[in-house]
Amino acid sequence: MSKLKIALIGAGRIGRVHAANLALLENAQLTVVSDAIEAAAIDLAGRYGVRATTDAAAAIASPDVDAVLVCSSTDTHAEMILAAVRAGKPVFCEKPVDMSADGIRAVLAGVAAAKGMLMVGFNRRFDPNFREVQNRIANGAIGNVELVSIISKDPAPPPVSYIARSGGLFRDMMIHDFDMARFLLGEEPVEVHAVGSSLVDPAIGEAGDVDTAAVLLRTASGKIATITNSRRATFGYDQRIEVHGAVGMLSVGNQHVTTVSEANTRGYTADVAQLFFLERYNEAYRAELAAFIDCATTGKAPSPAGEDGLRAQMLADAATESVRTGLPVRLTA
Amino acid sequence: MSKLKIALIGAGRIGRVHAANLALLENAQLTVVSDAIEAAAIDLAGRYGVRATTDAAAAIASPDVDAVLVCSSTDTHAEMILAAVRAGKPVFCEKPVDMSADGIRAVLAGVAAAKGMLMVGFNRRFDPNFREVQNRIANGAIGNVELVSIISKDPAPPPVSYIARSGGLFRDMMIHDFDMARFLLGEEPVEVHAVGSSLVDPAIGEAGDVDTAAVLLRTASGKIATITNSRRATFGYDQRIEVHGAVGMLSVGNQHVTTVSEANTRGYTADVAQLFFLERYNEAYRAELAAFIDCATTGKAPSPAGEDGLRAQMLADAATESVRTGLPVRLTA
Amino acid sequence: MSKLKIALIGAGRIGRVHAANLALLENAQLTVVSDAIEAAAIDLAGRYGVRATTDAAAAIASPDVDAVLVCSSTDTHAEMILAAVRAGKPVFCEKPVDMSADGIRAVLAGVAAAKGMLMVGFNRRFDPNFREVQNRIANGAIGNVELVSIISKDPAPPPVSYIARSGGLFRDMMIHDFDMARFLLGEEPVEVHAVGSSLVDPAIGEAGDVDTAAVLLRTASGKIATITNSRRATFGYDQRIEVHGAVGMLSVGNQHVTTVSEANTRGYTADVAQLFFLERYNEAYRAELAAFIDCATTGKAPSPAGEDGLRAQMLADAATESVRTGLPVRLTA
Amino acid sequence: MSKLKIALIGAGRIGRVHAANLALLENAQLTVVSDAIEAAAIDLAGRYGVRATTDAAAAIASPDVDAVLVCSSTDTHAEMILAAVRAGKPVFCEKPVDMSADGIRAVLAGVAAAKGMLMVGFNRRFDPNFREVQNRIANGAIGNVELVSIISKDPAPPPVSYIARSGGLFRDMMIHDFDMARFLLGEEPVEVHAVGSSLVDPAIGEAGDVDTAAVLLRTASGKIATITNSRRATFGYDQRIEVHGAVGMLSVGNQHVTTVSEANTRGYTADVAQLFFLERYNEAYRAELAAFIDCATTGKAPSPAGEDGLRAQMLADAATESVRTGLPVRLTA
Repeated sequence: MSKLKIALIGAGRIGRVHAANLALLENAQLTVVSDAIEAAAIDLAGRYGVRATTDAAAAIASPDVDAVLVCSSTDTHAEMILAAVRAGKPVFCEKPVDMSADGIRAVLAGVAAAKGMLMVGFNRRFDPNFREVQNRIANGAIGNVELVSIISKDPAPPPVSYIARSGGLFRDMMIHDFDMARFLLGEEPVEVHAVGSSLVDPAIGEAGDVDTAAVLLRTASGKIATITNSRRATFGYDQRIEVHGAVGMLSVGNQHVTTVSEANTRGYTADVAQLFFLERYNEAYRAELAAFIDCATTGKAPSPAGEDGLRAQMLADAATESVRTGLPVRLTA
Repeated sequence: MSKLKIALIGAGRIGRVHAANLALLENAQLTVVSDAIEAAAIDLAGRYGVRATTDAAAAIASPDVDAVLVCSSTDTHAEMILAAVRAGKPVFCEKPVDMSADGIRAVLAGVAAAKGMLMVGFNRRFDPNFREVQNRIANGAIGNVELVSIISKDPAPPPVSYIARSGGLFRDMMIHDFDMARFLLGEEPVEVHAVGSSLVDPAIGEAGDVDTAAVLLRTASGKIATITNSRRATFGYDQRIEVHGAVGMLSVGNQHVTTVSEANTRGYTADVAQLFFLERYNEAYRAELAAFIDCATTGKAPSPAGEDGLRAQMLADAATESVRTGLPVRLTA
Repeated sequence: MSKLKIALIGAGRIGRVHAANLALLENAQLTVVSDAIEAAAIDLAGRYGVRATTDAAAAIASPDVDAVLVCSSTDTHAEMILAAVRAGKPVFCEKPVDMSADGIRAVLAGVAAAKGMLMVGFNRRFDPNFREVQNRIANGAIGNVELVSIISKDPAPPPVSYIARSGGLFRDMMIHDFDMARFLLGEEPVEVHAVGSSLVDPAIGEAGDVDTAAVLLRTASGKIATITNSRRATFGYDQRIEVHGAVGMLSVGNQHVTTVSEANTRGYTADVAQLFFLERYNEAYRAELAAFIDCATTGKAPSPAGEDGLRAQMLADAATESVRTGLPVRLTA
Repeated sequence: MSKLKIALIGAGRIGRVHAANLALLENAQLTVVSDAIEAAAIDLAGRYGVRATTDAAAAIASPDVDAVLVCSSTDTHAEMILAAVRAGKPVFCEKPVDMSADGIRAVLAGVAAAKGMLMVGFNRRFDPNFREVQNRIANGAIGNVELVSIISKDPAPPPVSYIARSGGLFRDMMIHDFDMARFLLGEEPVEVHAVGSSLVDPAIGEAGDVDTAAVLLRTASGKIATITNSRRATFGYDQRIEVHGAVGMLSVGNQHVTTVSEANTRGYTADVAQLFFLERYNEAYRAELAAFIDCATTGKAPSPAGEDGLRAQMLADAATESVRTGLPVRLTA
């Protein structure tokens, strides 16, 4: 079988993750790395013996490229996606597709016009544990889903300078949870109510954002989801879900640094949760890339697709507005 | 030491629990049981060799009664409480003090006018696990409280006939969680947003109530609490809390029927959660009664007091209104 | 129904436990407390409004006594048991029936000659968790039992003065585990190999005993049990069992002081195990007494019976000898 | 930095694991694969673009080989190890070094004579969880080690034909646990008592082996270890350890297929333990290889070394003899 030839656009942290995972796949191979910073492109390309460039358009257009991974900065996503689909090449793009819902709509229109294939990087759907929960729901293990609870906390906040241009907690951090809620609810939320506070660092509040937040989602049929986020968790990267259905409940807890337990006069102590998202979602990133390669090779419809990127963004926008106005925001399903 | 002599008003299920717990205390003794149904009063009184009556007022006024436990139907609470405090006798009353916040206010005014002592039966505050969480918060174990999460699910819904006259899920069931949220937040909620659905039984919806609900609470300083309730949980009586603070997190899970784990080809299976509230809160009821007897004997201020009953009712009223209007409800701290 | 009238012989710690549990039963009542120390008898009897005596024989013989609980010192057990059965009264005796297997055999012969009923106080069989394990084994949940593992550790060693006259760790402490092993194996061990060390306190070794020990048991059909004991466990009273069968495994872990978990930079910390045997086996003591009263009332055969006391003692003797000789000891099934 | 060039002797299952892990290392590279079956060598070599041979001696002697991994059949280990060390090349050999302790002694003498470096493949020492336990013991976290408990059960027995030539359960399966016991005890066992039964499959007994076994080990200072093994575990590959020390206890449980928990009327069910040793010890194999490459590159002394292979074999021999004679076997520390 010939291998699918891949152009990687963006040689930053997440680009390096995908490059390493590509090297583990038998049905795909990296052929070119593009980055606006030439040294970064050269360094990463060198590790895998492929060519480097600063010309993303050329990389995408290259005849030895069958599919494209977009890991560059968000403001370039639209251009890269459209270049790829117009060249007839399947494209995977890290979230978000664009900083605004309207921007995403425009990209999706372009993808549709080109009859292109776009997969969006909500990697958590590929976590083996969360995926298993979704599989069991789909298989009827807990009956009709009634309540979804998602807890997501980062070990520590990013720099305030990052937060200031991030679009805010709901678009930058909780957007993963909005996608997960949709994945698990199996139905679109039609109402969003959010509360948010700046409790972790006053500078985050001064920058116009919140660092602690909770959201209620309701679907047309009355299913309810709660999401809580904090930019701080001393005990590790906190990533838990729970789904309560008519005949049962499914839950996933954290993965800890080791499974060692130490008992003494202070009690029984287990390790902190894994501290870093790349460690926690290590397998998810691998499975996500394999799924993209599979879709790109076989022509299967990708999931999550561009529409999923749009829907998550709409929920993030709604939550942001809800905090601003103190009122719930209604969406159409 | 002479024992505190107790009149028990109401010989129903919860009255019987208190009578049994009284028998375990060394510093108190039951002297009279009153119930509108004479046979019920006689039966319970007979178990402990004390006298029975249908005349609650006489029981409360009796010279061999030092303090009063009110476990009669909610519509009689106000009258019983006022009779007790006007007779100069400390009174414990099962929640709610009254079906409406205004009714509670009137009772509290009467209690205050009589310089009486009233303790309200939010038994969960006395659960050793929840109490330990509150103690550790008070001792600074997790720093400033930022997020409180309370999950409360009953194994199965009560009869629809009960629901129809219960005041609704928020006043009948979630009121315990509102009190717990206040207990753990250490600050009054100033905003309530609730969503509710009828997913368990359409008849509950037809009776004008919800059976599945989630609530967001926010305090003036920005602390956030989420509460989720369901009238159904196939895996037992689901009673969990989690408190996330600046430097740590405290959580309490369910108590299971046994601690046996069975491993086989289907996995590792632990027992369901304890199924019945009297079993789950067995120790809480004992500790609650002991606390009341202690306050009644020593003159210590009771907690939870009448004001706690009012505050929880106000939150339940606000949540009920929020579901009706689809809008958040603001309260003053 | 008339209540079974009970004489309690021995007003020490364990006698007080049984007296308190008797007060909770509806089908039995204490009528007399006997203790060699008059003040102890008077104090305990006074709590329950019954009479006190220093004359155990008279208490046992008394016409208002239907059954006898023997909680006096071990050297008096034989005499008390024989007095009871010869008076035609069912008798419950705390373990051990006697300090030597031959002594127990003599008592059992006396009980048999009198056609008496004797139940022996291996309370752990009545722990709801261990009992559930045994029930599931009996119901075939895990198929044929292959491996039993029992871990038993005390939080701290008793005084060396106690150890010196205790008969040694195997007879004083591990005897409970020998009984549990028999309860779970469902077949008599025919080989005992023990190793023991003095690691906790050299004074225990100087007193001729061990404080840390492990035992292998093998039955005729090849089932294997391991038992480990330590006189020290900083994390609480360690009481665990695990039973591996042909098609599954059952296990019971420790009960902790609370179910609170605290997560912070040091990890996730649960409470220590309950520290005291009376707390850990609180429910077991209640169920044990109820079972004795039930057998004494209905004539059902008691379990554990005198033969169980003898078998456990034989295993303890064999383990003691095995440590002394460094060789396994064979027993007949 | 130039990469360490590796010859892989043996292209079977475990050889393929090491080849895949080699490809992930930056400081080493495979250069040749040797296997007695030419097609196997060619297939594996082809995956990594290196050359294949059936001539192991030539591969070891090749100038483009710096170090050797021996993954061939046990009867060839001695020859391969000696060829490598005599060629001045560090060698890693899968356990066991030889089928007999005397055979191992002869190899170790040859290694010493050549001043060679030999690391033995007890991969479990490199499991991150077990290693962390050993690290904490070394750091004094639990004080003096008093009791070690190791549980090791395979999901299902190998074919009886394999068992018949395996050397028996103690040499084939429990040898890993003997090494782990030594790793954790930090002191040589001086006494071994073993019991074994054929409970899983009578054919195993007919082949002269046991399938269910327990062993007691005692060190000179009185530390005790228990090991239990079964060739069958319906709930997955059971791999647990527990170390009890003077001031605390460390334990490691199983890793489950996912972290999903499903709660319903039957209870709370977690997944089975990971079923396959290559999955369970995936990270251990990677860390083991990295450690060998590090020692081979820097000249550090390897651990586990040849002496560790000998000691584990001596314990396995002693356990085998103990089951045969029914008596404990003494060893010198």
